[in-house]
Amino acid sequence: MLDIKSFIAERVNLMESSEIREILELTEGKNVISLAGGLPDPKYFPVEELAQISSDVIREYGWKALQYSVTRGVREFRNELVRFMERAGIPGERPYNIIVTSGSQQALSLLSQILINPNDIVIVEKPTYLAAINVFKSVGAKFEGVGIDEHGMKIEELEEKLKEFRREGKKPKVVYTIPTAQNPSGVSMSNERREWLLELAEEYDFLIIEDDPYSHFMFEDHIRFERLRAKDKYRVIYTSTMSKILAPGLRLGWVAAHPDIIDALETAKQNADLHTSTFNQLIAAEALKRGVVDSHIPKVKEAYRAKRDAMLESLEEYMDGVAKWTKPVGGLFVFVYLDENLDTKEMLPMALSEGVAYVPGSAFYIDGSGRNTMRLNFSYPSIEEIREAIKRLSKVVREYTAKVSG
Amino acid sequence: MLDIKSFIAERVNLMESSEIREILELTEGKNVISLAGGLPDPKYFPVEELAQISSDVIREYGWKALQYSVTRGVREFRNELVRFMERAGIPGERPYNIIVTSGSQQALSLLSQILINPNDIVIVEKPTYLAAINVFKSVGAKFEGVGIDEHGMKIEELEEKLKEFRREGKKPKVVYTIPTAQNPSGVSMSNERREWLLELAEEYDFLIIEDDPYSHFMFEDHIRFERLRAKDKYRVIYTSTMSKILAPGLRLGWVAAHPDIIDALETAKQNADLHTSTFNQLIAAEALKRGVVDSHIPKVKEAYRAKRDAMLESLEEYMDGVAKWTKPVGGLFVFVYLDENLDTKEMLPMALSEGVAYVPGSAFYIDGSGRNTMRLNFSYPSIEEIREAIKRLSKVVREYTAKVSG
Repeated sequence: MLDIKSFIAERVNLMESSEIREILELTEGKNVISLAGGLPDPKYFPVEELAQISSDVIREYGWKALQYSVTRGVREFRNELVRFMERAGIPGERPYNIIVTSGSQQALSLLSQILINPNDIVIVEKPTYLAAINVFKSVGAKFEGVGIDEHGMKIEELEEKLKEFRREGKKPKVVYTIPTAQNPSGVSMSNERREWLLELAEEYDFLIIEDDPYSHFMFEDHIRFERLRAKDKYRVIYTSTMSKILAPGLRLGWVAAHPDIIDALETAKQNADLHTSTFNQLIAAEALKRGVVDSHIPKVKEAYRAKRDAMLESLEEYMDGVAKWTKPVGGLFVFVYLDENLDTKEMLPMALSEGVAYVPGSAFYIDGSGRNTMRLNFSYPSIEEIREAIKRLSKVVREYTAKVSG
Repeated sequence: MLDIKSFIAERVNLMESSEIREILELTEGKNVISLAGGLPDPKYFPVEELAQISSDVIREYGWKALQYSVTRGVREFRNELVRFMERAGIPGERPYNIIVTSGSQQALSLLSQILINPNDIVIVEKPTYLAAINVFKSVGAKFEGVGIDEHGMKIEELEEKLKEFRREGKKPKVVYTIPTAQNPSGVSMSNERREWLLELAEEYDFLIIEDDPYSHFMFEDHIRFERLRAKDKYRVIYTSTMSKILAPGLRLGWVAAHPDIIDALETAKQNADLHTSTFNQLIAAEALKRGVVDSHIPKVKEAYRAKRDAMLESLEEYMDGVAKWTKPVGGLFVFVYLDENLDTKEMLPMALSEGVAYVPGSAFYIDGSGRNTMRLNFSYPSIEEIREAIKRLSKVVREYTAKVSG
């Protein structure tokens, strides 16, 4: 009998299936409130506007909306992205600084391909975004982790590590960071630390990938974070996505970076998928032009703020004394720390049978630490579901704690 | 001054920019008739139907059309693909045998990632599809080429090579073939040779990738080619695309293969772009369900047949005696052979200044041979343009020949 598995290349073992997706599949169809995903709340998708724009785009552009287009991205969309970034506090971009990607997942995948040789050092936050760990791992990166606190990545700790590397004759290539409303922790890097990080990039000669999907959902209007890309157009590679500010099903992301980086990304993207859907790019361009995105963002922000508040209130009410958690200034997630001797992966089956799902936090740590942590999503569930989920979760935590200590 | 290029990974050098694209860019905006591309004729895109379907899909599915969806592909689309393949002469597929990709370019990219370790041997036709050469090269494949004639890949030559490899203790992993209306040559593998190829796959234990974008555009109704996938569901990995039968701007392709292959592709695709646009998959599913694709295909086929005839007639009229060419039974291309001492790459600037573009054939050869060949596309230009282009090209060939010999 033919053993097809023997034909699979070794590198497939480096690509780990996402733990989050597998958990989501476990809960499908069951009476489980999932705090595990990272889905936007579809109630706020501009459905009618997009239905109208879709047929308008085909009728207006005709066959051009349906034909092949250039790898770098449709000009109309890149022009709108330049304007959108300017409105968002990142002026000075040009269409040639931008490449459109099939979601920001593809941006990370292509960046890992063009930047990382096997054993190159990539520095990430501890915890950091799971999918970023996976793509960098798949090209053979070596990770170094830097801890976080309520002001984001601890730049002092980063500097110590950089000094150590220098003494050892090693040179990290990239710092990957989600400085604003970080996933999974919800914290943001202070402006002071951002300045410091940029200085270190000069001094130690590394590039920075600024992953910025959440900065449009900042809940405290008095705090303004300067985007790294606004300060440094050479070393900072910026990536963001339409998934949270318009709709994820269109699969649209982009990278703004130095033209040499964009050229390399273009070559890699030609191999990867030739180009991103012409039609979807024109839809997003039109949604930006007509103000659909700009008027959509505040509504979503208000909704997510209310949900965050509900989650924090419920945590106060039900989990005080048995857990600690971050107070996210934006984004979609709260990160929870249990007692050091607890293991949220071990606890997960209990949680599922009590009707609540989360992502065990160790998935977000490059070194398998963080076993006592978990990530809770508040963007997708309703406020009622959030309250009920935290109530269920607190019961699980108490029972599990008793079991472990008992 | 920062040298960004020094940060680019070594593997980027393995990814060659497509020669075809660069030539296309050269001709943009000039009075050049391009026979260089591989674009479908957009005159036949079902524009009105797709405008209607697009807004229907959003209104019918609502937010579901705009939300994240599973990596493997939207169930509605995979179901329709199973039925479509059955109508096309490949019965017995199941949704779990299918993964949706962002165009067939992504299918090739993911297949190269999951199958090829560095130095694995991949056997291809000489000439073969340029983009396939690039993706396999980017993962470190070693190529072996097998010649073609009017009945496709010479299987006798393949068998000789396989015997030689066996003697040397080597084991090729994959034969990549476009058996039906091959790109760039336009020829099809005879049914006898298909049987023989499948037998060799058993005997020498390799997998076959059957790339099948053109089999819906076969111009001689009395010839029927059995798809390899219809004969062997274990060793044959089938890939095709909606680009030629609906619209390339939607970026939709798919792979039908053994479930173990599909599982590995799913892992790789999760890393690459999470999933293909939910919206576009639902549009294509609806276009298949409403019969838009099935009624679209015969119209396009008739148009391409007339264009092929015009190109062959023009070649007879203008190029008799100075060139030989394939008589494509289907597809989008004629492949032209000039005298052995001529170099179509060297000739290209002359052609461009005479107002005609083509792809130098050496791009389609893994070993840099085929310098006297060129690929001519007949799907995109109009019949009038085809006649004029061949007339111009014959002038160029005659002048270039005189220059080289003189």
